[in-house]
Amino acid sequence: MPKRLGPDARNEALTTLTGWKLVEGREAIAKRFVFRDFSEAFGWMTRVALLAESMNHHPEWSNVYRTVEVTLSTHDAGGLTELDVKLARAMDAIVG
Amino acid sequence: MPKRLGPDARNEALTTLTGWKLVEGREAIAKRFVFRDFSEAFGWMTRVALLAESMNHHPEWSNVYRTVEVTLSTHDAGGLTELDVKLARAMDAIVG
Repeated sequence: MPKRLGPDARNEALTTLTGWKLVEGREAIAKRFVFRDFSEAFGWMTRVALLAESMNHHPEWSNVYRTVEVTLSTHDAGGLTELDVKLARAMDAIVG
Repeated sequence: MPKRLGPDARNEALTTLTGWKLVEGREAIAKRFVFRDFSEAFGWMTRVALLAESMNHHPEWSNVYRTVEVTLSTHDAGGLTELDVKLARAMDAIVG
C-alpha cells in the first residue's frame, strides 16, 4: 500500500502541481477542469479513466457539460499518497 | 426547445421510471446507479455520453469508483422536459 504523505511532503507535492488545492476538512486535493464542450470534457475523462484503471487508483469526479471537478485521495491509506500526486500530474499532462 | 412538463405530466412521467426521484428544491430528477466495479461504471457512462452527445442533452453526474449519481434537468427550459425522461429511460435501458 502507498504511504500516506506527512504535512511536509504534502505541501511539497502541492507546490509541484498547478491549480490543485487541499480540500478543507479532508485529506484530499481537488481541481476544476474546464473544457471547450462536453465532447472534449468526456474525451479527457475517458483517457483519465483508462489510466486510473491501470493504476487501480480512481478519482472522485463530477461532470456538468464542459466542467469536470476532481477530488483525489487514497482511501486505503486514509489520506494523500504519492498515487494521488501521480494521478493529478497525469490529469494535467493529458489536458496538454 | 422542448416544453417544460407541468406537475401532472411530471408525476406521470415519474411513474414510468424506475428508481428516479424528484430532487428537493429543484426541478430535476435523480438516480444513483451502482455497478460491479469502476470498469463497468465508466463503461456505462461512456455509452450514456455518446447518446447524450447525440441528443445534445447532457447529464449532471458524479462518479466514485463503482457508483454514479445522475441528475437530469433541462437548463434551457428551466425545468424537466421530455428530453430528461427520454435520457433517464435510455440510461436504465443501457444498464440492461
